[in-house]
Amino acid sequence: MKTYIKKDFPVDKVRRFLEPGPIVLVSSAYKDETNIMAMGWHMVMEFEPSRLGCFITAANHSYELIRKSREMVINIPTVDMINTVIDIGNCHGGKGEDKFGKFGLTPVDADNVSAPLIKECYASFECRVVDTGLLRKYSMFVLEVVKAHVATSPKYPATMHYRGDGVFMLSGKNVSYKSRFKQQNL
Amino acid sequence: MKTYIKKDFPVDKVRRFLEPGPIVLVSSAYKDETNIMAMGWHMVMEFEPSRLGCFITAANHSYELIRKSREMVINIPTVDMINTVIDIGNCHGGKGEDKFGKFGLTPVDADNVSAPLIKECYASFECRVVDTGLLRKYSMFVLEVVKAHVATSPKYPATMHYRGDGVFMLSGKNVSYKSRFKQQNL
Repeated sequence: MKTYIKKDFPVDKVRRFLEPGPIVLVSSAYKDETNIMAMGWHMVMEFEPSRLGCFITAANHSYELIRKSREMVINIPTVDMINTVIDIGNCHGGKGEDKFGKFGLTPVDADNVSAPLIKECYASFECRVVDTGLLRKYSMFVLEVVKAHVATSPKYPATMHYRGDGVFMLSGKNVSYKSRFKQQNL
Repeated sequence: MKTYIKKDFPVDKVRRFLEPGPIVLVSSAYKDETNIMAMGWHMVMEFEPSRLGCFITAANHSYELIRKSREMVINIPTVDMINTVIDIGNCHGGKGEDKFGKFGLTPVDADNVSAPLIKECYASFECRVVDTGLLRKYSMFVLEVVKAHVATSPKYPATMHYRGDGVFMLSGKNVSYKSRFKQQNL
């Protein structure tokens, strides 16, 4: 797998990588446990604070780690990791299991949360859970991105976007239409 | 612009087109007004009922039409419509304005909601608003897809995915990894 050199990135601009809808890897930790899960159901909800929503059911082992720690990291894997992403999705986490070791991924200490960053991913967004009130009705965590780490190169990652039934759409080219936009609508 | 021949599609499978994160066009109607807006902040929340969440602020003219009618249609435009999508995003709706006429789009009567389908789009999902309780805090509508119309060809649409700052990621190729998935995780 590739590794990327990363730098701090403005948290109010994480939509650049999340709004296109990639599959992400969620890393979490609570006490002596860590876990990783694949997630496709997420959305941007605000620029400032940098708010996200995501859907994680209690059937996921990660659910309790996130709910109890009130922290998680959203990592963006690139297409070279597609088999790893699928295998993580296939693998139900359990107490004491080390998914980093199992899948050859490298945990890196985050700056502001206990959940580890995944070194092999293009970007990692440290998130705090700011609202658990929608969990029971909608299995939805409301998050705030408190720190963003993004690869310095390439400018945009090659990402995978899940359609269900085993099919991924792979990201294509990036095109700027900036001149056609009104400034206030960018 | 292209037009597509469409057929009914199972509402519990709309994630095939929405989970990859395309920009969508939202059509709405209330009394004698209709409107169209571009939207990038949405997520799948459940298969059955077919539940979606989306972020629309009160600053959008569509907001009141959707809130009062409790209905909207999510339409999936394809890359050939990219200039139209940008121009719709640039254009703040106002009372009495006909965005269908202005942008050369064709309204088609929906089966179950008052908001019109956009004929030129690849797919249209008729939605009812099922929860307005998150509007004040999060500008979030919770929707249920009650009817889905999807083009019979091509199998997957060429979609645009917004990154902000005038940049779109265009959808690339679709690949099946079905054989690598455990059946229950598809």
